[in-house]
Amino acid sequence: MDAEIISVGNELVLGQITNTNAAYLADKLTQLDLTATYQTTVDDDCSRLERVINHALTRSQLVFICGGLGPTTDDITMPTVARTMGTGLQTDQQHWRWIQEKFKQRQIAMEPENIRQAQYLAGGEPLANPVGLALGCWYETNGKVIAVLPGPPAEFKAMVDKSLLPKLQSHYQTGKQIVSRTLNFLGRPESQLMDEIEAATANVKSVVITSYVQPTAIQVRLTVHDLPAEVAQQRIDQAQAAILQVEEPYFFGLGDDLSLAKVVVELLRERQLKLTAAESLTGGMFQSTICSVPGASNVFNGGFVTYAASVKENLLDIPATLINQYGVVSSETAAAMSEGCRKKLNADIGIGFTGVAGPDSLEGQPAGTVWIGLAIKGRPTITRQLHLAPYIGRQAIRILSVQYGLQMIYHELKI
Amino acid sequence: MDAEIISVGNELVLGQITNTNAAYLADKLTQLDLTATYQTTVDDDCSRLERVINHALTRSQLVFICGGLGPTTDDITMPTVARTMGTGLQTDQQHWRWIQEKFKQRQIAMEPENIRQAQYLAGGEPLANPVGLALGCWYETNGKVIAVLPGPPAEFKAMVDKSLLPKLQSHYQTGKQIVSRTLNFLGRPESQLMDEIEAATANVKSVVITSYVQPTAIQVRLTVHDLPAEVAQQRIDQAQAAILQVEEPYFFGLGDDLSLAKVVVELLRERQLKLTAAESLTGGMFQSTICSVPGASNVFNGGFVTYAASVKENLLDIPATLINQYGVVSSETAAAMSEGCRKKLNADIGIGFTGVAGPDSLEGQPAGTVWIGLAIKGRPTITRQLHLAPYIGRQAIRILSVQYGLQMIYHELKI
Repeated sequence: MDAEIISVGNELVLGQITNTNAAYLADKLTQLDLTATYQTTVDDDCSRLERVINHALTRSQLVFICGGLGPTTDDITMPTVARTMGTGLQTDQQHWRWIQEKFKQRQIAMEPENIRQAQYLAGGEPLANPVGLALGCWYETNGKVIAVLPGPPAEFKAMVDKSLLPKLQSHYQTGKQIVSRTLNFLGRPESQLMDEIEAATANVKSVVITSYVQPTAIQVRLTVHDLPAEVAQQRIDQAQAAILQVEEPYFFGLGDDLSLAKVVVELLRERQLKLTAAESLTGGMFQSTICSVPGASNVFNGGFVTYAASVKENLLDIPATLINQYGVVSSETAAAMSEGCRKKLNADIGIGFTGVAGPDSLEGQPAGTVWIGLAIKGRPTITRQLHLAPYIGRQAIRILSVQYGLQMIYHELKI
Repeated sequence: MDAEIISVGNELVLGQITNTNAAYLADKLTQLDLTATYQTTVDDDCSRLERVINHALTRSQLVFICGGLGPTTDDITMPTVARTMGTGLQTDQQHWRWIQEKFKQRQIAMEPENIRQAQYLAGGEPLANPVGLALGCWYETNGKVIAVLPGPPAEFKAMVDKSLLPKLQSHYQTGKQIVSRTLNFLGRPESQLMDEIEAATANVKSVVITSYVQPTAIQVRLTVHDLPAEVAQQRIDQAQAAILQVEEPYFFGLGDDLSLAKVVVELLRERQLKLTAAESLTGGMFQSTICSVPGASNVFNGGFVTYAASVKENLLDIPATLINQYGVVSSETAAAMSEGCRKKLNADIGIGFTGVAGPDSLEGQPAGTVWIGLAIKGRPTITRQLHLAPYIGRQAIRILSVQYGLQMIYHELKI
């Protein structure tokens, strides 16, 4: 079934913000076996919006209109949709009382225009907004469906997840027959990974495989449509097994919202291990990434940023002779950093990062040359060298170094 | 003049990637006084793309078609545009030889289909691709202009900047009369900032003021169209002066690509000062942000992540009695952290971050409560408390804490 997403807003048309809502909704629709074949963006102009909606209705059965539900005069979406559909607006009295109550609580003066956020298309149904003031709307006409949604991404996502998707599933009787699973990988170029996965799953029937490149992972989603749930699960299990036979070294877990940092913090927590770090080129990014996970304090007490060689010597007791002999960007220095921080904080695991973030080369080594040392109590220290492409830039070199460091810890703990 | 951006790609329609190209181009067009009033996305389907182009030509004078210029059979854009415009394809022989040479150099087998990346619309002009293989195209017909551009964002941006914008400027004689300047602010809600700016500049004529909310700043762009350059600069100077009279405390510099971290690193470098940090809730993010600036090593040797109270005591020599008496989240602890790290690394400036990142509260203080300490050699240590809204979430609380820390350093050095 063809769906169309219409995004409304001057700030989109002027290029002031990127449209993340359209991708979010399109992905959710894909998972329900609906496709947003057309996506249109238009400014906050009544007559252009009206024309765009009418055009959408000539080619799509399902039209989403997103943005422009605020209380200001710029926000023309709900009345414009009403006029286009030949209907009026009605007020959700209960919601209107709730809005008034909210303003009272916050001791903010309310404008009469705020009533607009409690209005929806006459003959339609309001869609609840779990995190904001404005209602959305679901409206059916001549076998077609129009859904009106708010623009701010947090409100948009919440209304899509909590109000819109259940409505779509029950209306189209779709999504119930869809089973999907997301596998997360790191350390393989996407095209190579997908070629290998395609070859590995050539004999697995009915599983659609799609990939999503994230900054810190490649997500691979396995989806089965229209088979009984048990059969679908079997097919997905079969596909996953075939994939992991080849790609196990790059796999780190299941789930849409998974991050390698989350996996590592959880593993450390289970095993009651404490982690610390000494960071040179990453400059604190590894520790910051660990601390981005709620509950990081269970596994991490602190660590070091040792940017200059002198600080590596002073804070980690690394002999100047070692750095002089092998260089700052060396296996030996990375190992000494990981051991030094582990001992200083009496932790179970110490990790050290040293390398060339760029743009300039260092000690004759090009940007992208990175050494990671990993010292685990009771095991020999290991090191790994990365050769990242200099052209990806300083920030990407640092981000990938952190992710490969997390991967080393993950693999060592999983052994 | 109405322009329209058509983005082509299955991965967009399926929601696998966010369309960053449209916002990038829309912003560039806005700066040239052109407006991308309509933006459309469609999948890699010849007949749908043809219909979308024909519809665009009914309402827009200038149509950009982006994506689908690769060498595979999915990449249908250039031949589809040619058919829609009733023309054929021609090969840029020189570019074709260059592609063949590239493949030879990289020792990769070339497919015959690669010739498609050297083809453009017969009767049009090729647009050079500074960082990729596929040519774009500029095509004029009946007073309208069609431009075809590649999909990968790095190639897209490079072709827009280097090939498309100069062509647009010379064709429409636009952009030459446009003068603009970007002011960067931190620490004021956007709506409030813009209301105050609007009031402050009420008497300044001809300056269009637009705002762009970035994660770490609010950018305000002042633009003057169609006035002699000298007059335009005067108007912008006048607007800037009026704005800074009110918003000076929140201003940190000029430029589209400015970050507060860059400004602070540059200030420290000029004054030959060394900075260090002790981070609790930010967990290394402040230091990582400093290290994201090339040349950070001139002003930063290293520092501490002191997540647990015990590590604050061990690494920074903060007395346990102080933490017990005042609490971890206190002005006294933040001050002691900043002084402790400064002394330990013999730096000129030490900054300390302690607070509640959330989701849980700490010592009875809600998420978003943050203390920052700043110790500058030869000056009394100062501290500042932030009350960030808990609902913005753990990551945003940490990012804003870092930015407010940078702001404190900036203001202290500027005094």
